[in-house]
Order: sequence, then C-alpha cells, then structure tokens
Amino acid sequence: MADAPPSVKIALLGAGTVGSEVARLLIDHKDDLAQRIGAMPEVVGIATLEPDDEALTGLPRDLITTDAAALIPKADIVVELIGGLEPARTFVLDALQSGKAVVTANKALLAAHGPEIYEAADANGSDLYFEAAVGGAIPIIRPVRESLAGDRIQRILGIVNGTTNYVLDRMTTAHLDYEVALKEAQEAGFAEADPTADVEGYDAASKIAILASLAFHMRVSLDDVYREGITEITPHDVAAAAESGHVIKLLGIAQRTDAGVTVRVHPALVPLTHPLANVGGAYNAVFIEAEAAGELMFYGKGAGGVPTASAVLGDIVSVARHRALGGKGPRESNYVSLPVLPIASSRTRFQIRLEVADRPGVLAKVAAILGAHDVSIETVRQPPSGGGDGRAHLVIATHEAVESDLSATVEEIRACDVVHAVLSVLRIEGE
Amino acid sequence: MADAPPSVKIALLGAGTVGSEVARLLIDHKDDLAQRIGAMPEVVGIATLEPDDEALTGLPRDLITTDAAALIPKADIVVELIGGLEPARTFVLDALQSGKAVVTANKALLAAHGPEIYEAADANGSDLYFEAAVGGAIPIIRPVRESLAGDRIQRILGIVNGTTNYVLDRMTTAHLDYEVALKEAQEAGFAEADPTADVEGYDAASKIAILASLAFHMRVSLDDVYREGITEITPHDVAAAAESGHVIKLLGIAQRTDAGVTVRVHPALVPLTHPLANVGGAYNAVFIEAEAAGELMFYGKGAGGVPTASAVLGDIVSVARHRALGGKGPRESNYVSLPVLPIASSRTRFQIRLEVADRPGVLAKVAAILGAHDVSIETVRQPPSGGGDGRAHLVIATHEAVESDLSATVEEIRACDVVHAVLSVLRIEGE
Repeated sequence: MADAPPSVKIALLGAGTVGSEVARLLIDHKDDLAQRIGAMPEVVGIATLEPDDEALTGLPRDLITTDAAALIPKADIVVELIGGLEPARTFVLDALQSGKAVVTANKALLAAHGPEIYEAADANGSDLYFEAAVGGAIPIIRPVRESLAGDRIQRILGIVNGTTNYVLDRMTTAHLDYEVALKEAQEAGFAEADPTADVEGYDAASKIAILASLAFHMRVSLDDVYREGITEITPHDVAAAAESGHVIKLLGIAQRTDAGVTVRVHPALVPLTHPLANVGGAYNAVFIEAEAAGELMFYGKGAGGVPTASAVLGDIVSVARHRALGGKGPRESNYVSLPVLPIASSRTRFQIRLEVADRPGVLAKVAAILGAHDVSIETVRQPPSGGGDGRAHLVIATHEAVESDLSATVEEIRACDVVHAVLSVLRIEGE
Repeated sequence: MADAPPSVKIALLGAGTVGSEVARLLIDHKDDLAQRIGAMPEVVGIATLEPDDEALTGLPRDLITTDAAALIPKADIVVELIGGLEPARTFVLDALQSGKAVVTANKALLAAHGPEIYEAADANGSDLYFEAAVGGAIPIIRPVRESLAGDRIQRILGIVNGTTNYVLDRMTTAHLDYEVALKEAQEAGFAEADPTADVEGYDAASKIAILASLAFHMRVSLDDVYREGITEITPHDVAAAAESGHVIKLLGIAQRTDAGVTVRVHPALVPLTHPLANVGGAYNAVFIEAEAAGELMFYGKGAGGVPTASAVLGDIVSVARHRALGGKGPRESNYVSLPVLPIASSRTRFQIRLEVADRPGVLAKVAAILGAHDVSIETVRQPPSGGGDGRAHLVIATHEAVESDLSATVEEIRACDVVHAVLSVLRIEGE
C-alpha cells in the first residue's frame, strides 16, 4: 500500500446509539480499517439534532453538526442512521442523486419507499447497502443478495424482532403473563416504552418485506405483508404448545409457490426440534430453505447499538473499497413479477384450542364441522388442565389447510351450541 | 436490460458431483441467472478426465472435453472443481495470470498454496472467490470477508466437517461405538471408503486455516494448525460428557489474543446450552465471536454436490456481475503479522478421565499433582458406572489451564502408583 493512501470521506447522519458507536469505531479503528479498505476512512461530520446527547461523549466536537443537508456534498459515503421516513428519505435520495454511496440501517424507509430508493441508486450508479436493516449484526442481506444469488430461495422463516422473542421466551421459560414479560423486557431495555411497533409485528413486517424482495427478486412492500402481533398470546397457549412439543415464536415468513408469494408476520407454533426453536432471549435468526443449498440458518444479535454498528461498518468498508479500488455492489434485482397472494389463500397447519361442553358427542360435532370445510384433523387432545365446571378443553391440530377454509370453519365452530369459546387459533410452521 | 445482453463465458474444470451440478444449474437456470448478472452466462466447456461418467448424463456432449488447459483461454471465469493440489494449482494460477476470474471450492489448495494464489489474483486484478471451500452451502466466506470487515473477530468455533459430526452424533444419540458409527456413515454416503482426511481432522484443518486467514487478516496455512482426530473417542467419553451436560464435537478453532493466534482442530466437550451443541447429523455450523457483533452462528449443509453447487453459483454470479457491470471483489487482506502460537501455550479447560485404585487418599494424591502444576480443579465426579474390581473412575474438570502445564500434569498422573490408566483427556470449549 502506498504511503499516503487516498481518503474516503464519510458523513454520518444520525448519532443515536448506533450512529455514535459507528463514529467511535470509525475513529478508533481508523488504521485497521484503512488497511482493509485501501484508503483512509475520514469522518467529515456527524449530524444530529441533539448535539449534547450523552451518546456523543468522547467524539470530536468539531465534527458534530445539526445541519445534515450541508454534510452530504462533502462526503463520498453517506451513512443514514436517523431512522423513520422523513427527513431520512430526502437525505438518502439527495445523496444517491448526487452520486454518493449510501449505507442505511433504516428498515422502515426501505419497506415503505424501497422502489424509489433502489431506482435512485441504479440511475446514478451509486452503491446502496443496508445490512443493518434486518437482523442487526447478523449478516443476512449480503448472503441473500450475493451468496444465494445463483440459487432459488423457496421459503424464509425469520425471528427478526428481538423484543417479541424476549417476551415469548420469558413467557415460555418463566411461565409469565404477557404483560409481566413485556414489563420485564422494558426494564431490561429490550422493549420501548411504547412497544406497539414490536409487539404488533410492524417492525418484523418491514424486515420480512425487505427479505422477500431480495429473496424473490421482486418488489414487496410493507402493504403486502399480512400481520398479527403477540398481544393475544396467553400462558395457556404457551402451555398447550409445549404439550405438543412446540414453542411459540413470532415469525416473519416469505414463501414462494408457483401461484405467487405469501409474506406474513404472526405468532406460530414451531416444533422444538426445529433450529429456530432454540433461539432464545433477544436473539434473532433467519432460516432459509433454498432449492440447491437446502436449509440454512443465520443467528445472532438482532439489535443494540454496538452489534448494529458492526453491520453498518461492514457496509462502509464494502462501499469504501469500491470508492478506493473501483467496483460497485449488486443492483436491485426485481425482474420477477409474481403476485403477492392474500393470506386467505395461504396453506398452513393450525392449532385450535376450544372450550366445550364436557359431554359425549361434542367431539363428533366439532369434527363434522371441520370435515365439512375440508379441514382434516391430525390430532385431538383433551388436556387435563383445562375445563372443570361442566366444561372441557379441546386442542385440535389440523393437517395443512387453506386459510379461508380454516376461517370459515372457526366461524362455524364459534356458533356451535356445544362450544363455549374459541380460545385461540395459531398457525404451526417449520415442519 | 438491453435486448441482446453481453455474455459471460464460463469454463468448468472438474465434473464430479459438484461440477456436473453447477453445469446443470447454469444451463437450466440460464435466463434467471442472466437477469441477476446483467449478462448471459455461457458455459464454454466442461473439462473432465472421465467424460463418460454417469454424473454428466443430460449435459450437452459437445461441451465436454478432457483438455482443461485449452478451455482457460476461452473463458472469462474459470471454475475449478477438480480438487486436490495438482493440476488444480497450475490451472488456477494460469487462469489468474491471464486475467481470468477464478471460482474454486478447493480448500486443500487454498490452505496449502493460499499466498501464491492470492498474490496471483492481486497482481492481475482478478477476482478470486471460494465460498464453497468452507461450509459447503453455508455462506461463511463472504460474511467473514465482507460483512464483518469493519469488526474485529476474536474467536471462531466451527463444526466444519460433516462426516465427523455425523459419526459423533450417532455415537451420542444411538450410543454406537466409533467403528459402527463410521461404518454407518460410509453406508449412508457421509464418509469415504478411506475416511482418514475427515476422521483425522485434515479436512477441518484446511477449512479453519482459511477462516483464520480471513478473520485475522493474516496468512495462516495448514502447517500452522494443531490437529487431533476423533478416532480415539469412546462411548465412555461420550457418556461422561453427557453426564456433565456436554456433547463431544470435532471443532475447528481460531482464536486471537494479544500475544498471537491459535488455530487448532480437535474433539471438544461443548455445553448442551451452546448453539453448536444442537448441530446434528452431517450439518455444519460456524460460531463467531466478534468485538462489536457479539455472537453469530451460520448453519447449514456442509457438503454434497447440490448444496455445494449453490455456493459455487453464488460466486459465479458475483464475479460475472463484475465482468458485466464493472467492479471487483475484495482482495487478500493480510496486513496483520501476529505469531501463530504453539498449542503448548494455549489456554483451555480440560476434562480428564482416570481409572484409579478405589481406596481413600487417592483423590488427595491426584489433586496434589494438579495443584503442583498450577492446574486448578473445578469439579471431580466419581461416576457410578466406572470401576469395580478394586478400581474406580474419576472425572476431573479443570479451570482454564495452559496446555503445557496440563500435559506435564497428565504425565505425572500417568506415572502415579494409585492411577491405573488415564482414560482420556479432552478439552472443554464454548463456555
């Protein structure tokens, strides 16, 4: 390497936990990174609306500015870590349109405005990297976009939200109620004061939309994702899952069939033997089924300032190498135009828990309803724990059924005179 | 994309299970791949010394040739799937020196002649990709080389040989002897007729040498790797491991400390709570500890023609994109010059199983020897299963100790009059 390597100028927009950590690593590891890049990384500025934030302690004061827009022209690489839609969208588009490379961790932005952003990158020949947008520190975007680029991905099952995995894990291992587990997660820093984006599945929906786009080489937006959260999950659901050898996880699922793709987020029963079942705490994991590669899993920390900074830095090194040595990363690949199928047409197995009258003939009545809708039963259990007072619980696991048939079945069961309540209907995945 | 995209010419050298599958996928998925590459992939020839091999059934006869050297000048990308050192080395160097991009799955070649090959690639500005050399279908090279390029990898623990994992898994789950499990693996196609390269750890040693080179940005060759195989593992070892909450795995380990790096392959006790403990059958997994990213794991099929072909195709798409659209992959990064430390200086925990005289005072005697060598005891168990006939078994788990101290300890224990036999000494990893 020459004595005075060229420099690569980096502007950081946003200086929260991730942004300040990226700045710190870029400055502290400067010499190491220069060797890996082939050019000296130079932070030209750190834009934040809170220049006195504690997270910025120790960073050079003269780099900190409140004027993000003014930083963009000075940079080769713009790193967007503001989050949210605006002003992040404007800054990212400005940067791409003026030929800058962009690194972002902004899943919401990509899920909402992906096409516009990909097009700006392609039109201007700019690199657009976003490894940190899904799975935090876990390298998942690059494997899907590049390593598996010669394969055909058939299905992705992802635990892509650490908050909900932590809550469900505590409900499973410590037998907590949802509210207690959520409170614990909030106290441990794994959940926000307003947990809606996590517990209702919005965060996971953004991530699975991004993964589906890359995996299937088509455009999938947040609006295409069917979504259910975990707020209705009870300790009884968790116990019933355990009794049948399952654990409940919030999954992001993207599946490709000849008819089209389905993209959905919902809690699901996962067999204990499945690699995803062992993903505990706030960890994330993405399980991929590809035609040639078979089953793959990627596991690691899905959030947190320092882990996420690792993914952002990997992207910065990649695009900085391109600046220093020539080259360009992969472009958007969206040549496939398959329909996104409605949830009603998707096929899954289901577990239905019912409270019924404790008398002969009830099961026959319920089974007849299922049969009439083409939903076939795999197992029926009557757990000793449920019921009493003239009532019993039934736990029915179905074979694979079409969602709309199942919905019609459940409506009819709910109206049936021997059924007191439909306690829960959960999908079974990963078998 | 334009109507008549340029083509990228691909020569396949080697047409065994992997090579023939790569050829098949390149031809069958041509249109799909063209969209992803931005140019039409064109197979200009398939070189093999066995043109009538069954694996070639269905492939165009006019592409098949026995003259590999003659194919190279016709190609943009040379895909080396011959394996072994020669003639693979000559072909790869020829290709790189004439400015071709090279994709290879040849771990033995890279572990033995890595520096020469990396230099040829750098000197000629040629892409050199080798995702399939480690972990079969699992994207592991690209994550280490690119995704984690901004981080500092501290340790890698890898199950990187499917044969030994299958054998150890069967010994654990079906309580088989080593020989019986090996025979089963051979019958199931998971082990070669001559299993030496796998069961003695040579294959794993090549792979961990490659991973260590990439992870630590330095040159690590096969000769730097300390190596022990699994042929001495007995059902008693497996049972003793289980009793203390462990499972025995053949691990490739690369670790960085301030003093240098250690790179080794040996069987080890892994706690059942560690993500690697659940990696069953012939699956592979690589567990990485990085400064910022924390703990990551990559899991999937480590061998087999079709899975490995997926990794090779991913590399072909990457380098073909560079040919079509400009750009270049990462160069060798070897700027670090840390010493590779001898195994004698490495620090680990150990489990020592002894057959001793069944009388008072024995434990005190053994403990005194350990203490004299600065090896401190964590637990001692006397399993009910061992011993009889005036003899007892002792299972000692040590705290972390220096390997040379441990070796001296074991020698002295072996010579001690109350000790009938040192049954096994195994390292404990992943805690």
